Amino acid sequence: MTKKVLVPIADDTEELEAVSIIDILRRAGALVTVASVHERLQVTASRGVKLVADKSIKSCLDETYDLIALPGGMPGAEHLRDSRELAAILKRQVEQDGLYAAICAAPVVVLQSHGLLEHRRATCHPNFVQQLKDSTAAESRVVVDGTCVTSRGPGTAIEFALKLVEILFGKQKAAEIAQAMVFAFIY
Amino acid sequence: MTKKVLVPIADDTEELEAVSIIDILRRAGALVTVASVHERLQVTASRGVKLVADKSIKSCLDETYDLIALPGGMPGAEHLRDSRELAAILKRQVEQDGLYAAICAAPVVVLQSHGLLEHRRATCHPNFVQQLKDSTAAESRVVVDGTCVTSRGPGTAIEFALKLVEILFGKQKAAEIAQAMVFAFIY
Repeated sequence: MTKKVLVPIADDTEELEAVSIIDILRRAGALVTVASVHERLQVTASRGVKLVADKSIKSCLDETYDLIALPGGMPGAEHLRDSRELAAILKRQVEQDGLYAAICAAPVVVLQSHGLLEHRRATCHPNFVQQLKDSTAAESRVVVDGTCVTSRGPGTAIEFALKLVEILFGKQKAAEIAQAMVFAFIY
Repeated sequence: MTKKVLVPIADDTEELEAVSIIDILRRAGALVTVASVHERLQVTASRGVKLVADKSIKSCLDETYDLIALPGGMPGAEHLRDSRELAAILKRQVEQDGLYAAICAAPVVVLQSHGLLEHRRATCHPNFVQQLKDSTAAESRVVVDGTCVTSRGPGTAIEFALKLVEILFGKQKAAEIAQAMVFAFIY
């Protein structure tokens, strides 16, 4: 059975983080839905890359996902935070012990803002570490605490996405993808 | 004076490579033009990410660039190869000793096909190394030979883009960007 993954995006989402997550999870065979939190599907990401979502976040409300993974970027993460639909989907995911993940600004700006980092070790972009309630693991590039996975920035996005593949599909699949991508630093 | 960079894209371009180049060169301050080699501006990249180009490659014919950087992906690289306009722009760039770069399938499928790797050490994706005329440097993650820069895959795309920043803007700028992105592996 395939794994369903939701990747929400917005204007000023960090495009390299969003695309790393989408690309690598799809390489693993996941069914990845890219959802805009705006009314329109096309967003302009933080460095001007124009991305077109598959659907609107509103049309994702009745779906369930094996993973919800949030890219960072500012103020993109604020747009994710301010989406009522995404907040509802995230809270349900956490209540149901589903896997959720965030990188860069998103752990603090989205997850912590919604109370979804309580009693979780987490990391985030260095610019946001001082705002983390529990920063004991903040120096790690990828942190897994139960169903919550966090990471630091575009330069850690491949490691983050490969960790998500490892959790959903196993270490062997993650290692195969890392090799095919010529990513030499882990596995 | 700002640096002008051309990044051509097509259906089945590897999105993580394209976005790494665009994102990181824009972080450095380059004026990056994303150009579709198709009639339409929206392309569907190799893992289904929908990217919208800034303009068509036809409207780039009269421009000059400080760098032309080609993402890989298959058959995306074949679409780049088959664009007469891009071929003309690339050949002029090489004749005028301008900087040009390619990653993954593109060094072989685009540059070598057009005779633009003659007497150049280069690398490419492992799947294409056997087709490289001169594979003496093929194990390196990023190869600089004169005005030609080549690299291997999505997992080397950040290093590739940072090397292009280093050449155009200096090592200090590349190091600053690597740090801001939490890319720990070089600099």
